[in-house]
Amino acid sequence: MPAYATNMRFKFPIVALTLEIITIILFAVFAVYDDGKGHGHDSHSNDTHHEEPPMKLYPMFQDVHVMIFIGFGFLMTFLKRYGFSSVGINLLLAAFGLQWGLLMQGIWHLDNGKIKVNIFKMINADFSTATVLISFGAVLGKTSPVQLLIMTILEITIFSINEHLVATTLMASDVGASMIIHAYGAYFGLAVARVLYRPGLRNGHDNEGSVYHSDLFAMIGTVFLWMFWPSFNSAIAETPETQLNAVINTYLSLAACVLSAYAISSLVEHKGKLDMVHIQNATLAGGVAVGTCADMNIEPFGAMVIGFVAGIISTLGFKYLTPILASNLGIQDTCGVHNLHGMPGILGGLAGIVAVALGKKEGGEAAMQAAALASSLGFALVGGAVTGLIMKLPFWGQPPDQNCFDDSIYWEVPEEEEENEESLAHADHSKNKAEA
Amino acid sequence: MPAYATNMRFKFPIVALTLEIITIILFAVFAVYDDGKGHGHDSHSNDTHHEEPPMKLYPMFQDVHVMIFIGFGFLMTFLKRYGFSSVGINLLLAAFGLQWGLLMQGIWHLDNGKIKVNIFKMINADFSTATVLISFGAVLGKTSPVQLLIMTILEITIFSINEHLVATTLMASDVGASMIIHAYGAYFGLAVARVLYRPGLRNGHDNEGSVYHSDLFAMIGTVFLWMFWPSFNSAIAETPETQLNAVINTYLSLAACVLSAYAISSLVEHKGKLDMVHIQNATLAGGVAVGTCADMNIEPFGAMVIGFVAGIISTLGFKYLTPILASNLGIQDTCGVHNLHGMPGILGGLAGIVAVALGKKEGGEAAMQAAALASSLGFALVGGAVTGLIMKLPFWGQPPDQNCFDDSIYWEVPEEEEENEESLAHADHSKNKAEA
Amino acid sequence: MPAYATNMRFKFPIVALTLEIITIILFAVFAVYDDGKGHGHDSHSNDTHHEEPPMKLYPMFQDVHVMIFIGFGFLMTFLKRYGFSSVGINLLLAAFGLQWGLLMQGIWHLDNGKIKVNIFKMINADFSTATVLISFGAVLGKTSPVQLLIMTILEITIFSINEHLVATTLMASDVGASMIIHAYGAYFGLAVARVLYRPGLRNGHDNEGSVYHSDLFAMIGTVFLWMFWPSFNSAIAETPETQLNAVINTYLSLAACVLSAYAISSLVEHKGKLDMVHIQNATLAGGVAVGTCADMNIEPFGAMVIGFVAGIISTLGFKYLTPILASNLGIQDTCGVHNLHGMPGILGGLAGIVAVALGKKEGGEAAMQAAALASSLGFALVGGAVTGLIMKLPFWGQPPDQNCFDDSIYWEVPEEEEENEESLAHADHSKNKAEA
Repeated sequence: MPAYATNMRFKFPIVALTLEIITIILFAVFAVYDDGKGHGHDSHSNDTHHEEPPMKLYPMFQDVHVMIFIGFGFLMTFLKRYGFSSVGINLLLAAFGLQWGLLMQGIWHLDNGKIKVNIFKMINADFSTATVLISFGAVLGKTSPVQLLIMTILEITIFSINEHLVATTLMASDVGASMIIHAYGAYFGLAVARVLYRPGLRNGHDNEGSVYHSDLFAMIGTVFLWMFWPSFNSAIAETPETQLNAVINTYLSLAACVLSAYAISSLVEHKGKLDMVHIQNATLAGGVAVGTCADMNIEPFGAMVIGFVAGIISTLGFKYLTPILASNLGIQDTCGVHNLHGMPGILGGLAGIVAVALGKKEGGEAAMQAAALASSLGFALVGGAVTGLIMKLPFWGQPPDQNCFDDSIYWEVPEEEEENEESLAHADHSKNKAEA
Repeated sequence: MPAYATNMRFKFPIVALTLEIITIILFAVFAVYDDGKGHGHDSHSNDTHHEEPPMKLYPMFQDVHVMIFIGFGFLMTFLKRYGFSSVGINLLLAAFGLQWGLLMQGIWHLDNGKIKVNIFKMINADFSTATVLISFGAVLGKTSPVQLLIMTILEITIFSINEHLVATTLMASDVGASMIIHAYGAYFGLAVARVLYRPGLRNGHDNEGSVYHSDLFAMIGTVFLWMFWPSFNSAIAETPETQLNAVINTYLSLAACVLSAYAISSLVEHKGKLDMVHIQNATLAGGVAVGTCADMNIEPFGAMVIGFVAGIISTLGFKYLTPILASNLGIQDTCGVHNLHGMPGILGGLAGIVAVALGKKEGGEAAMQAAALASSLGFALVGGAVTGLIMKLPFWGQPPDQNCFDDSIYWEVPEEEEENEESLAHADHSKNKAEA
Repeated sequence: MPAYATNMRFKFPIVALTLEIITIILFAVFAVYDDGKGHGHDSHSNDTHHEEPPMKLYPMFQDVHVMIFIGFGFLMTFLKRYGFSSVGINLLLAAFGLQWGLLMQGIWHLDNGKIKVNIFKMINADFSTATVLISFGAVLGKTSPVQLLIMTILEITIFSINEHLVATTLMASDVGASMIIHAYGAYFGLAVARVLYRPGLRNGHDNEGSVYHSDLFAMIGTVFLWMFWPSFNSAIAETPETQLNAVINTYLSLAACVLSAYAISSLVEHKGKLDMVHIQNATLAGGVAVGTCADMNIEPFGAMVIGFVAGIISTLGFKYLTPILASNLGIQDTCGVHNLHGMPGILGGLAGIVAVALGKKEGGEAAMQAAALASSLGFALVGGAVTGLIMKLPFWGQPPDQNCFDDSIYWEVPEEEEENEESLAHADHSKNKAEA
């Protein structure tokens, strides 16, 4: 099976080392510390951050950092046999992605030919990796580390173009990035997943499920994302006052979202039981959906309405839409990113259009908000499709169907408890039989 | 068994959605962003926070947030089959509770008829949910989500009354809330547990224990609570200087408490072994007990003495008192909240009385401190008893005895590893037999 | 087996309680709150911190706190049967160590005969415990809690002497403590491990390995260490500008380190698979190695080169050097601290010498940097050897070889799932046989 030569021994080290060395060279050429004296133009900040203490945003940065590395990483550990890859490949992609993102975002804002690194840019670099981690969720378990590194480069590069277009050309507002991160990352990933469609997984896969403790590991990710989402949506707000509003709106949107997600989960499930997939994911949809208008004057109850609706839409999506996407459209969305990031991201974009139209943001234009949403979706779908075609080339070491959702194809895995016990049972049996 | 109709399909969604919709309407009427121009009277702050940067307390808020959602949530995952409920229902109750707490605490401090939401109020809202999560520990495994939502509303409402009384009327000091949160939450929960006494669990329950990895999940909760407790006790201190003192006192009290809790655990256990229940809980008693006088001038060694004593009392309580409460008083305290929050909370209240009497707090009055402790206990016991009676009504979907401590009654649970393996062993056996 | 009387019932409580009571007495004599009016000389701060808001460093402190208690604690939970000890004894040693560190570091900087406790000193106290936790990794699974408490006292005492020498006498630069914490802690631990060499473990031990979920618990530690390392390396930087540089350098060094660690892991492992041991540890080597020159003007790409090299060295160390140390030198290094802290710490010290020689630090002297590295290694090796000899005395309750790496010798452990299932299989078998 030459198309499936999954041995990473040379492919992966060569790709990883080459990428890192190129990146270091680019940093040597372009990156310097921000000495606070620049007159660059940060797309979101309009320079407000330049005269502030250099460490002012650091606690916000660390919250976002935790969301990227613990939040996304552990959220995906729900699969029973794919935890190493979830948290481990998440670390790999985000560690590379933040370097690449610093470069790609930085080249739009050169100051005397240099990228001046500061906390604000580090937050944006972390943000850029979020798009990749969202798309990673769509193709989780069905891709090799080499394929994913390729996706990282392409997705962040395209993201940086769209972000520049949205923020600088369209001057649209998207402080919490419902459109440019969540909708973009989700539809990019879904386009990739469509191109990489695997008919062999049509009827599911034995490993595509959770065990009790893997669901608890995933809850670590869920809860850290949930808690720090107010930081995500407010980190790059322009003033302390809009930052406070973004925190309050996100806090309340997420709280309302929990209630509606739990309620709908119980309503649609067998015997009114709660479903962990919904709890792990749909409770976060309120953070996504309130993103675009987080810093706008939508009033606390407005944020709660957005979160409440997002929790309903997201839960219903997991229950009814994901199976249809898989069976009818050939989109196998492992983590259901369409329900957590896709639809809530669009909802966030639409809410932003309405809020701006209602005058909730000084100087905003509803048409530009709509253009930003369309741009984000367009770049996502086209970029994802092209990226998917490149990832489909048969020499990146992708796993055969039967080894999907299984760490052991790319990781040394300790002898599994279950198998171990099964074999113990075997041994016992044999021993007992021998003794009998 | 009509009293035990545990199907939540309509009960739970209707209650959850109704509560959330009512809450959103109340927010629409009452809640606005704090524009920093108000002249309201925050009970703890004496307005000092109003002239400060709006985001100043945000890192403190996030530490408290982590304690509420990760700390309490994972601390209760120690039960082998109740992890989904522990961390999941914790999220549900806290998410609803913080909304309800914002309203209930806010109505005492209206500014032109509005509740002005800010970080300080969000910290207090998170605090109010802690009372519910403590009580949740007492009845863990024996209550339905609907019962617990009812408890949340009532407990936070009553808490807000007592808090207002203690802080505004009595003008007592309780910066770390030993009395108004810990003692109140514990005795409220114990009163509920007494009313919901289940004779059928007199001899324990198969699921009322831990497995190796569930104890490790619980340690995530323990350690996050332990680390961030200095933030809990100092978040609403009046000045940066008293805030520093509260941090130092809590840091040292907790450190001393660890040593005494470990020592006593080893002393009372079989062969001098350490007991995870003690380590998970009694190591935190120092944070509870130093709460009331955290911002007072008790000197570092004073804080350490308090923590040291709390670790001893708490460990001894787990070992000797909890079984007696269950067998003699009909109080089945699943998590031993009496030992972690109850007795250390009273110890904290008493330490506060002594410290104020010794002049360690400017302007404090020992009699008012004593009244605050009595008030907190009184509201807890009466409020808990009444709440317990309401929760006892037979149509809230409470679990029958045999399904206590078992997620699968309210959650879709993946096929259990153990059972799975057991059946594998079965299958092996059969196969081998067939081959034999 | 009198040398192996592992019952801790009296030994441990007496030692722990005695140490804590002595510590409290010393705090009563020496420790007061910092009122901001002192004119003491903090070794690192040159008093810059004294005129700042008292809570300014608190978010940094909390990040370091998380690294100490969650980071180190969970990193060591990778062993299948030693998770309670890893996170539990980590908590014990760090809780005692921070108190002892506050005293030992404080006596060099008395102000009117008092140690004025503040956030800066708390960060340094947490730092001092890191040395012990690193050494703990070398002897993990082979030592009793009493032995480890003895190691804590001695190691922190000696650390404080070396730190004072390096910072005050040599005036060397080591902001991120590559030398005085990482190299010191590692070689101290390796010296102890050498003295405690166990020939009986020459051929390994059944419990000295991981299971699937224990590796995931360990990743919680890894990722929290990785995320907050920029805080560790920048917390005590002298100005906001050097603090920013330290954050940027550490962030980028760690990111580059991830790529090289993953690449080399895949290159050296069977079939190009990734090895969890490397991922859990070597990805952090970049944080260690950039420590000494984190606040120097080494430019972003300089930091990345350091991290890149550290990731390679560390991974190769795990693969090739650790087995040699064990078989040829009698150094059984359970967690491979030589690869994570030892070699990268020396690399950091060397990088610091070069950077200072190249003028990247104002006023630095390369010779003093070299002396600091030599001093740290010297104190570590001699101090560790002496400490090892004291720990080797036969009455501290050390475990016999066959009980190494097993929590159940010092902890009450719930009936193990595996054994449980094994016995279920037994039972099934018997039952089936009976029925047959």
